[in-house]
Amino acid sequence: MLHSLAGRPETHLQARMLTKLRDVGALSRAQLGEELAVSRTTVAAEVTRLTELGLAQEGGPAASRGGRRSTMVDLAEDLRFVGISVGATGLSVAVTDGRLAVLGVRSVPADVRLGPERVLQLALTELRALMESLEVTRLIGAGVGVPGPVDFHRGVPTSPPIMPGWDGYPVRDTLARELSCAVVLDNDVNLMAAGELHAGVARRASDFLFVKIGTGIGCGIVANGQLWRGVDGCAGDIGHIRVEEFGPTCACGNTGCLEAFAGGAALAREATAAARSGRSPALAARLEVTGELTAADIASAVAEGDAQAVQLIRDSGRRVGQVLAGLVSFFNPGLVVVGGRVTGLGHALLAEIRGVTYRRSLPLATGHLPIVLSELGDRAGVIGAARLASEAVYTPIGKERT
Amino acid sequence: MLHSLAGRPETHLQARMLTKLRDVGALSRAQLGEELAVSRTTVAAEVTRLTELGLAQEGGPAASRGGRRSTMVDLAEDLRFVGISVGATGLSVAVTDGRLAVLGVRSVPADVRLGPERVLQLALTELRALMESLEVTRLIGAGVGVPGPVDFHRGVPTSPPIMPGWDGYPVRDTLARELSCAVVLDNDVNLMAAGELHAGVARRASDFLFVKIGTGIGCGIVANGQLWRGVDGCAGDIGHIRVEEFGPTCACGNTGCLEAFAGGAALAREATAAARSGRSPALAARLEVTGELTAADIASAVAEGDAQAVQLIRDSGRRVGQVLAGLVSFFNPGLVVVGGRVTGLGHALLAEIRGVTYRRSLPLATGHLPIVLSELGDRAGVIGAARLASEAVYTPIGKERT
Repeated sequence: MLHSLAGRPETHLQARMLTKLRDVGALSRAQLGEELAVSRTTVAAEVTRLTELGLAQEGGPAASRGGRRSTMVDLAEDLRFVGISVGATGLSVAVTDGRLAVLGVRSVPADVRLGPERVLQLALTELRALMESLEVTRLIGAGVGVPGPVDFHRGVPTSPPIMPGWDGYPVRDTLARELSCAVVLDNDVNLMAAGELHAGVARRASDFLFVKIGTGIGCGIVANGQLWRGVDGCAGDIGHIRVEEFGPTCACGNTGCLEAFAGGAALAREATAAARSGRSPALAARLEVTGELTAADIASAVAEGDAQAVQLIRDSGRRVGQVLAGLVSFFNPGLVVVGGRVTGLGHALLAEIRGVTYRRSLPLATGHLPIVLSELGDRAGVIGAARLASEAVYTPIGKERT
Repeated sequence: MLHSLAGRPETHLQARMLTKLRDVGALSRAQLGEELAVSRTTVAAEVTRLTELGLAQEGGPAASRGGRRSTMVDLAEDLRFVGISVGATGLSVAVTDGRLAVLGVRSVPADVRLGPERVLQLALTELRALMESLEVTRLIGAGVGVPGPVDFHRGVPTSPPIMPGWDGYPVRDTLARELSCAVVLDNDVNLMAAGELHAGVARRASDFLFVKIGTGIGCGIVANGQLWRGVDGCAGDIGHIRVEEFGPTCACGNTGCLEAFAGGAALAREATAAARSGRSPALAARLEVTGELTAADIASAVAEGDAQAVQLIRDSGRRVGQVLAGLVSFFNPGLVVVGGRVTGLGHALLAEIRGVTYRRSLPLATGHLPIVLSELGDRAGVIGAARLASEAVYTPIGKERT
């Protein structure tokens, strides 16, 4: 949830100082004082405290700016965060430093329907192997994303439609026990948005939408540089916005949902139908080889100029654009980033989304609105997970900006 | 725009103190120190400064809580704000005290198409008469709302579709000169949302949507107790979200817009057609008397049980509900307030909006979501205008929470 401004600003110094060092890099004590608008004495005391906590460290003298030399301050060199991104069919784990630079990442196939025990065990096995190869012994925080709604405050999935067995499972607390560090759980789309904010095309944006088109469709909302999770933590669930009165039945049980027309699963289903009916020779040929069609197959068929495959992409992009146009009129964001597996379909899909969105939103809202593809790809999730972990650690409990 | 948390919190003391006094009432120095988490010395210095500025005043000693008696602090008794709400067909002016209690209000018919000079002159004439009757000589701030998009930072309307002659007109600066006080200009829907937040059904809410159904349709967005205006200041412009591929031509030039189906102008047009075609005896009878049908006529016909009038309301409510369902899934607000002239149609319209929204949004987002009618009615706009004026005055330039 976006943080309000009430409360006690003087307790934020730790969060403000560590976030500054994370996003800007090492700074002299003098620069920190200026940037944070606090006195040298306050900076010195806080740096000492953070050094004792193992969060910050002091280096040599800063370059002289005339007068007394200042000392350089940085995040502790051995700070390590973990990002775990659980998807519908695979998971990734990454280890980052305190500034969230990825030191290593591992991805393995994993069907989320195996349930939380087996999937989390798999994630921990991968993570431990990665930590060993990187010689990491101490973790300071971990972020975890799952492909479904999450009760952010309790750290559990809430009635996730494609995650049987996960409803109410204590994902956060289980991992916190296993990893002996602070853990944050969120849905995968919010993590990807946070990743884009930290290191992707949105890193200079503070108000943007991240639209994920994967097996399902969701939206991450960033306002004033903070994720907006909504009152019940389910903001951005746009996959079930109705685009038609009737249509294929969706995983949620309703008909006419965006996701049931334009998500990865819907595309695969339509592609298979086009292959079987003989309408698409290119898709039929691929289906014969692979036995199952995915977004990647449709992308290949598009590249071969297959008319049916192109039509599938256009239809999907048009539906996404219809919904996005409304959201742009409503929210007036400064940027829209499109990501997720289906972006393997890339520019064909983007062109259609752009066309519909620009045509149907108000000119005032789209005059300066870039709609772009994610450049982080699969890494958005784990980087975002590490970022949320860093926020939890840098802003200690009881000192949240609430 | 929502404010971020970066910046210099120690400069907010004036804003925090005055806002606290506005929303809570008189407080002792000791209570102020506790509420704002600052020392007694800091409170004393700030109170002295604000008293010299004529913004605050000190009263007698507070009730003893043991130990030294504290002094009561309040907003200056003679603080006066003005709210001016310009609608499509009429305008209202109000004068409030520092806590935004309405001391007097005047409303007159005024066609916004007369242009800014004549409409603002009319507003000033009404305001001066009101000030005279209330014996107000000094204004400290004024808020002004207009029925169209506004460049909030420049204080001018921006291509407002139903306000010929207003595009780029310096409304804020003109009124600031005439009234010799700080002036804030915003669109009418944002002001109504701010009014509901201050004194209406949303006064205990911090995250809600205010849907105005008047001649046009718009939405005010409040997140963390602050208006969200979007990157270009046009957030909430939901009247032109497309609900059908085809449909009546809208004032914006497109077809299929929500407003062209469900706004007050569309309702009046449909009602007139129903009257002329003989489908609605009740509406035909009223048209014969009045020569023109409005929302109030439809409300009367609904009350008489006229089937056509009921159908009009249901169709309108259904379209609004369709759009609102998507916005609820996207934004996950804690409350939806429906207001504007068409709410004269009241519970018939609300029932339909609720039905569609609850049926079509995700259960997680609507589980605890009240959808209610505004109780402030016409006053929402002027109270909201005064509230924005108070924010501008209480948070001096250069000390914004940016």
